[in-house]
Amino acid sequence: MEKKWRTAISWHFDHEAYVRGYKLADLIGTLSFTEAIFLVLKGELPSEREKRVLDSIFVSLVEHSIAPPSVIAARAVASGGNSLHVGVGAGILAFGEAHGGALEGAMRFLQENAEKDPETVVNEFFKEGKRIPGYGHRYYKKYDPRSLKIMEIAEREGFYGKYCEFAGKVEKIIEKIKGKKLVLNVDGAIAAVVSEMGFDWRLGKGFFIIGRTAGLVAHVYEELTMEKPFSKRLDEEKEVEYLGLSPRELPERFRKRD
Amino acid sequence: MEKKWRTAISWHFDHEAYVRGYKLADLIGTLSFTEAIFLVLKGELPSEREKRVLDSIFVSLVEHSIAPPSVIAARAVASGGNSLHVGVGAGILAFGEAHGGALEGAMRFLQENAEKDPETVVNEFFKEGKRIPGYGHRYYKKYDPRSLKIMEIAEREGFYGKYCEFAGKVEKIIEKIKGKKLVLNVDGAIAAVVSEMGFDWRLGKGFFIIGRTAGLVAHVYEELTMEKPFSKRLDEEKEVEYLGLSPRELPERFRKRD
Amino acid sequence: MEKKWRTAISWHFDHEAYVRGYKLADLIGTLSFTEAIFLVLKGELPSEREKRVLDSIFVSLVEHSIAPPSVIAARAVASGGNSLHVGVGAGILAFGEAHGGALEGAMRFLQENAEKDPETVVNEFFKEGKRIPGYGHRYYKKYDPRSLKIMEIAEREGFYGKYCEFAGKVEKIIEKIKGKKLVLNVDGAIAAVVSEMGFDWRLGKGFFIIGRTAGLVAHVYEELTMEKPFSKRLDEEKEVEYLGLSPRELPERFRKRD
Amino acid sequence: MEKKWRTAISWHFDHEAYVRGYKLADLIGTLSFTEAIFLVLKGELPSEREKRVLDSIFVSLVEHSIAPPSVIAARAVASGGNSLHVGVGAGILAFGEAHGGALEGAMRFLQENAEKDPETVVNEFFKEGKRIPGYGHRYYKKYDPRSLKIMEIAEREGFYGKYCEFAGKVEKIIEKIKGKKLVLNVDGAIAAVVSEMGFDWRLGKGFFIIGRTAGLVAHVYEELTMEKPFSKRLDEEKEVEYLGLSPRELPERFRKRD
Repeated sequence: MEKKWRTAISWHFDHEAYVRGYKLADLIGTLSFTEAIFLVLKGELPSEREKRVLDSIFVSLVEHSIAPPSVIAARAVASGGNSLHVGVGAGILAFGEAHGGALEGAMRFLQENAEKDPETVVNEFFKEGKRIPGYGHRYYKKYDPRSLKIMEIAEREGFYGKYCEFAGKVEKIIEKIKGKKLVLNVDGAIAAVVSEMGFDWRLGKGFFIIGRTAGLVAHVYEELTMEKPFSKRLDEEKEVEYLGLSPRELPERFRKRD
Repeated sequence: MEKKWRTAISWHFDHEAYVRGYKLADLIGTLSFTEAIFLVLKGELPSEREKRVLDSIFVSLVEHSIAPPSVIAARAVASGGNSLHVGVGAGILAFGEAHGGALEGAMRFLQENAEKDPETVVNEFFKEGKRIPGYGHRYYKKYDPRSLKIMEIAEREGFYGKYCEFAGKVEKIIEKIKGKKLVLNVDGAIAAVVSEMGFDWRLGKGFFIIGRTAGLVAHVYEELTMEKPFSKRLDEEKEVEYLGLSPRELPERFRKRD
Repeated sequence: MEKKWRTAISWHFDHEAYVRGYKLADLIGTLSFTEAIFLVLKGELPSEREKRVLDSIFVSLVEHSIAPPSVIAARAVASGGNSLHVGVGAGILAFGEAHGGALEGAMRFLQENAEKDPETVVNEFFKEGKRIPGYGHRYYKKYDPRSLKIMEIAEREGFYGKYCEFAGKVEKIIEKIKGKKLVLNVDGAIAAVVSEMGFDWRLGKGFFIIGRTAGLVAHVYEELTMEKPFSKRLDEEKEVEYLGLSPRELPERFRKRD
Repeated sequence: MEKKWRTAISWHFDHEAYVRGYKLADLIGTLSFTEAIFLVLKGELPSEREKRVLDSIFVSLVEHSIAPPSVIAARAVASGGNSLHVGVGAGILAFGEAHGGALEGAMRFLQENAEKDPETVVNEFFKEGKRIPGYGHRYYKKYDPRSLKIMEIAEREGFYGKYCEFAGKVEKIIEKIKGKKLVLNVDGAIAAVVSEMGFDWRLGKGFFIIGRTAGLVAHVYEELTMEKPFSKRLDEEKEVEYLGLSPRELPERFRKRD
């Protein structure tokens, strides 16, 4: 009978933990954390070049201010009187379509289209009124400095291939069609580079999650050690707009009940 | 061999679902939701009186404004681009020690102490500098109208017994000792009444969760249908105080690396 | 400036909580839990008929055995050494597309198609290879007894309208086209009836969440009081199939590092 | 007015993200992931030695088979038809007192007692019937090879100080008192070393979370790409023991209602 629980990731042989065939105890002190992550995700050990590229990607994602919904959720949950891991778990739940989703979307876009003619692809997207994930930024209008860095590293390490090229062409075509530049943003750049490294777009959100977890841990720790419980409570007068009904009387048939 | 998964709640007999021994299909159209909840939690069907008391308790918990951390978390997670259930799940995670925990705490306090002399109990708590859960309110200084309602209903339905009595005595003793009143709040009143009904304090948070879930569903639905994705993002300038370091240069040894 | 936090659900007037315009304290002892839920979700109080229909729906969802992924997740999380609400929150997270999603899907199907010709609609779905949500059951091949009950109640209470009719026609057309019956299942029946009551399909998962939360509370309580911490651990030998690599040696370049 | 949201972790200066005072863009390609994590958590950049020690710790935690409750929860939630991040979030929720809690507990134990006489400390714990977190293992009875590795690295890198020493002494004293060895396990060893590095025990669970997230990502990705939705469903006959009531009739008063 086929078993319900199946995995190729890790196993115990003689009560010793093995990860992707390597004894875990042998990896301690031998691999860097990034190399171990690569092994877990990809099934094989990375080259020095792959490690350096992946390091640059995780660093670019490690923390991005208190502002995003994930940190709001994480700190609000912590302020309800919870342990560290519950706050962090809630923060990760916020990584939906609109929060980290661009990375997955951009990977999918590149992996499904990089063999096609970029101009045709862009035109089709725009004809259907769809946005191309990985392009555009609130403040960066000429270039996203993080994307430049990541692309530069990818090139230096030999990972500037068809996906990076395609991503660059699309940026130019968008500008030609729209008459204004939508810069290849950091999600788009990461998407191109991890695609070069052979990662499936369905794993895209995973890079975001792994990269950002440290930031969430730091925020929840700060909340738990620096703030009072229940501090994350809205001030209705100052922070909330009420769009509902004014006070009203209960209908007769309910008042009679009591 | 003992099985890892064991339950006394429900089972399929001949592919038909049974809950606590009753065929689920027979309960549809026969029980009210509150009666079914009582059955699931307690293992037996409630009397009419038990049902009315439990209805009053769930109604008192059903929704309590957009302000608490649970709603902040639920709507923040939803705004990250998630489905309804993910937002609601995140909201429930906020129900920690400081958010709904008073109900569990008050149940425990009553169930562990109701046989003792209330004056001795209160004095001991205060000597150890501990707060008694279920007493005190930000705005209600004379009485909590919700507690009065619940106690009145409990009395009318024959559930005003040793726990309610003890809870009332403790309120008076606190006033005597402190010189100011800490009203029996709604958590304290609910705690007394569900204790009368024979519910274990370890289930205390469950009443809060069941009661408040509808409110969370309504808030997440509102977020998803009324607001734009990512709307729950803090404005650093206006809403956040930065307590950290000013911009600084990377130490030499890191700059050399690149 | 438009505020980030806005709601029409509830508000404090003079430090008193109001829900949809009614003073919360006035609802305690006056409304049943189901009536209060209807008020929170819909903005208005239900009629007696609406209440009875909604009660039957929530009862049909209240608990459905230990088997589904939501209970596995809830009890596994609890067994990690967590409080009640964390286990319940994790359980609700499992209510994805494949778990409760049929209710939302069926509501959407009915609300988007009930005005059209059912035969054309079904044919189009099948031509595109899409399943129609709300039809088919593992064991019920002639009829789903829960659907019959709910439809019967809906009819008795005056809520058998265009959605119920359309749902019934679709069942017959599927049988005609496929040559075998796919019964209108309980998700499909609930979907039809809550559509009659004017609820938006985007709220569909909400009925499932509200209904099933009590069951999750009971399961997590059982786990916490009846089982040892960490009892939910897989036995690799008996329960897991390993699809991965056999033990292998670390490549030379890594062994040298140490 | 004091603001509700405060942080010292990161900030935007001129629309550029800064982490602990360093421009994020400057860290990309300059720091390894582990160095960036250290910076986020500690506020300062690590030395080469600190980086190597921290790498060994994260590697030791990166993945530990499909068996634990966190993976069960993560894969069950994913099988409900959810996105990658929802499964990972649910997995992290499982990291309660009994799952990763030993690391936090051991850090606390060491940080609160390392200045005291170890024999007195151990005796006190045993007198109160308390277990000392960080000692004992199901299979390792002589030594935990992972602990040896981590301690060896700590020593080589100059982080074998008072906490490591104290941890070693406690292991010997336990053996003397109990007459059998409870090995310093991997949680205990990590606890000692991160204490040497000046990390607060309240952050303890954070190391576990950061280290293990990659494993959870891999498991959820495997579930989503390799298994069918809803595959994580218990087989009642084979996997579950029913402890509840046999089918019974509804009491008269309920049957009359319908």
